[in-house]
Amino acid sequence: MSLYTQLKQKAFEANMQLPKLGLVLFTFGNVSAADREAGVFAIKPSGVPYDELSPDKMVIVDFDGNTIEGEMRPSSDTKTHAVLYKHWPKIGGIVHTHSTFATAWAQSQRCIPIFGTTHADHLTADIPCAPPMSDDMIQGDYEYQTGFQIMDHFKELGLSYEEVEMILVGNHAPFTWGKTAEKAVYNSAVLENVAHMAYLTQQINANAPRLKDALIKKHFERKHGPASYYGQS
Amino acid sequence: MSLYTQLKQKAFEANMQLPKLGLVLFTFGNVSAADREAGVFAIKPSGVPYDELSPDKMVIVDFDGNTIEGEMRPSSDTKTHAVLYKHWPKIGGIVHTHSTFATAWAQSQRCIPIFGTTHADHLTADIPCAPPMSDDMIQGDYEYQTGFQIMDHFKELGLSYEEVEMILVGNHAPFTWGKTAEKAVYNSAVLENVAHMAYLTQQINANAPRLKDALIKKHFERKHGPASYYGQS
Amino acid sequence: MSLYTQLKQKAFEANMQLPKLGLVLFTFGNVSAADREAGVFAIKPSGVPYDELSPDKMVIVDFDGNTIEGEMRPSSDTKTHAVLYKHWPKIGGIVHTHSTFATAWAQSQRCIPIFGTTHADHLTADIPCAPPMSDDMIQGDYEYQTGFQIMDHFKELGLSYEEVEMILVGNHAPFTWGKTAEKAVYNSAVLENVAHMAYLTQQINANAPRLKDALIKKHFERKHGPASYYGQS
Amino acid sequence: MSLYTQLKQKAFEANMQLPKLGLVLFTFGNVSAADREAGVFAIKPSGVPYDELSPDKMVIVDFDGNTIEGEMRPSSDTKTHAVLYKHWPKIGGIVHTHSTFATAWAQSQRCIPIFGTTHADHLTADIPCAPPMSDDMIQGDYEYQTGFQIMDHFKELGLSYEEVEMILVGNHAPFTWGKTAEKAVYNSAVLENVAHMAYLTQQINANAPRLKDALIKKHFERKHGPASYYGQS
Repeated sequence: MSLYTQLKQKAFEANMQLPKLGLVLFTFGNVSAADREAGVFAIKPSGVPYDELSPDKMVIVDFDGNTIEGEMRPSSDTKTHAVLYKHWPKIGGIVHTHSTFATAWAQSQRCIPIFGTTHADHLTADIPCAPPMSDDMIQGDYEYQTGFQIMDHFKELGLSYEEVEMILVGNHAPFTWGKTAEKAVYNSAVLENVAHMAYLTQQINANAPRLKDALIKKHFERKHGPASYYGQS
Repeated sequence: MSLYTQLKQKAFEANMQLPKLGLVLFTFGNVSAADREAGVFAIKPSGVPYDELSPDKMVIVDFDGNTIEGEMRPSSDTKTHAVLYKHWPKIGGIVHTHSTFATAWAQSQRCIPIFGTTHADHLTADIPCAPPMSDDMIQGDYEYQTGFQIMDHFKELGLSYEEVEMILVGNHAPFTWGKTAEKAVYNSAVLENVAHMAYLTQQINANAPRLKDALIKKHFERKHGPASYYGQS
Repeated sequence: MSLYTQLKQKAFEANMQLPKLGLVLFTFGNVSAADREAGVFAIKPSGVPYDELSPDKMVIVDFDGNTIEGEMRPSSDTKTHAVLYKHWPKIGGIVHTHSTFATAWAQSQRCIPIFGTTHADHLTADIPCAPPMSDDMIQGDYEYQTGFQIMDHFKELGLSYEEVEMILVGNHAPFTWGKTAEKAVYNSAVLENVAHMAYLTQQINANAPRLKDALIKKHFERKHGPASYYGQS
Repeated sequence: MSLYTQLKQKAFEANMQLPKLGLVLFTFGNVSAADREAGVFAIKPSGVPYDELSPDKMVIVDFDGNTIEGEMRPSSDTKTHAVLYKHWPKIGGIVHTHSTFATAWAQSQRCIPIFGTTHADHLTADIPCAPPMSDDMIQGDYEYQTGFQIMDHFKELGLSYEEVEMILVGNHAPFTWGKTAEKAVYNSAVLENVAHMAYLTQQINANAPRLKDALIKKHFERKHGPASYYGQS
């Protein structure tokens, strides 16, 4: 009997949300769920189709990227997850997808401007797009370096990973995270929706202005501020 | 036993149409249904996923925004609904969504030009887009002021809320209404469809002309005029 | 017992294909099926949602637009159908929809250029777009005149209704037809697909050339020529 | 009892994936599966709707295009399949579709630039677009010549059919292939996804740069190189 039965179940359920939300084709995505006390996370095995997944196939990995339990090879993006868990202590879940609109923005090497309240309901900044990595980083330990590329870009922009729970990696695709795997999946779906609407907004009006500061503040705070009044308390 | 069982049922059913019509992601939308005699409306509770909704979770609110019955907190947009019910005496249902194409037009701060008969079958004007509110209004009682922003823009354009049952709030998203909640939901779906086709029309022909007056009049009147001949009498 | 049971069944089944093929929202479309010997056609009743349709609700109308049998009011577009049946003796079915991409081209007042073999598999001409009608025609017997507008545009372009089984009516939406109602529905779906791909083609390459004549001829003839070899003989 | 029962079953199953993956409208596509030892392939019969297909309806054809077994006429594209099997000895399956985004690129006569890692996970080159054929080739044995047009374009660009398993035929539509029919179908879905994202990428940023060489190499090799670490070994 595994010590990690519940964690695997949680990671399995979060992974199975990706095809339901239309965020993945074939195996192009993965979710992990962390257990902070145990210092490990459960992640999707590499290249396994979603309809062949089961909780017991999840792989348990520590925050240095070592496999602790599991018969299958973990997702090829495992080291990126490990780096983020190790350095960002308050996240409990990470998602990587190649969802269509978010990936198109990443390929365009453009951050997604904050055009409306749907965006501001979730974060107050443009959705950042990290530049493609240097050739050295790519030829080295690529997935490990991808984690640092993400963190370095947050430092450069002065962003907090607790406030901005998503990023585009230039030429590649999005990563999202959150306090739980479930929240990280939610963030991936929100990102895809915001990316779609921002795309249309620029097509309709190439000079569409960013959302004004007062609205950014209002919408974010009504959902997340100390006096928030969205949802059930 | 609630006095408002039927009203809650009506609001519940109308809310459940939103995901079926593809108009909402997660909880990004809400419908209310009014009982004019009782001076109240039933509205979706805030932040509750559609698959967890049930008629008894609907919240009963009066036209000043006070909760009359219900254990849950009402939608964060409740005050906007209340203001519109209070000042527009002939509406029985209101819908707010962040549907993709309508929201993109709102984010673009553009009204939707009347390009064809699908539009004219439902209204004879461009679909109005209210400008973003002033900082004062935003920092004040935001959702309450949103209602006034909508009404003021109708006054400014000389529009009748009985003839034009929809608006885009700039940088935010659409509101629609109607004699019943069911009609208001119908209007939200029509708006999204018209917004999609208007988007494509401008992409195909940046100089596409507005529909000529004779066609606007003809199509609207065959559905809504005194000698209408659309549908079953 | 109706003389027209089979005809109503045929029209019913063809109408029910429209929502399955994603060509209609709510009641925005109609199909008719003709019985040439009896000199009548069966058509959808006006404004009835597809999930409330049944074969016995179909209305029987003659080629002058007079209702012969049926308790409901026929589609508001009935006279357009009648005119086309009367003047084009070899068609057995007609479809009108407001399908998204075809309607966007109609609103743009642009014919759809023949860009590829998917188009050429079905017709050798650009898909014509009739200009909006004159104010006189609109204010007169509008749906009746729509039929003449379609036929006049075919005459002006020298097109044969047996070879080109579809048209866009400018600012309005598409009509398609065929030897049977089933074929007319097929043509509506093909038109929507061709309209979607032509839209994308022009977005990708604003100078995309029309298909060369040799390919137009080849693809059309392998499906429809005397030595056709597509399908089962 | 047919010698080819298993081969027909394989071709049938692969064909049935096309509508499930959203790659075909009506009958606009076909898959074949080859048996290299027997020197034959099984292919979809021409013009038969997917919901009327069954394994026994598959047609057995040799690599010169002669029907070996089967009561129905094989796909009109059969000779293109035959030519490719005859000259490219390591492919075991071929797919032809008119999938929306890939076909739009083909109609635009543009190759699909490699913009991101989703593309590089599968091939290191731009997705080639063969020019439309000469009038002579079209008027001759058209489908046979289509096979040569594909092979000639690969020679001209110096591409290997084992590394690049897809092509657009200008003004027409895509062909994909692979070691098995299942892999060829997978490639068609990947191509459609990559074509969609490349379209959006260029709309968002008309000057979006191609993916840098180091990333192309890295992503391809982690899936396909000698030290690949994607999937289960």
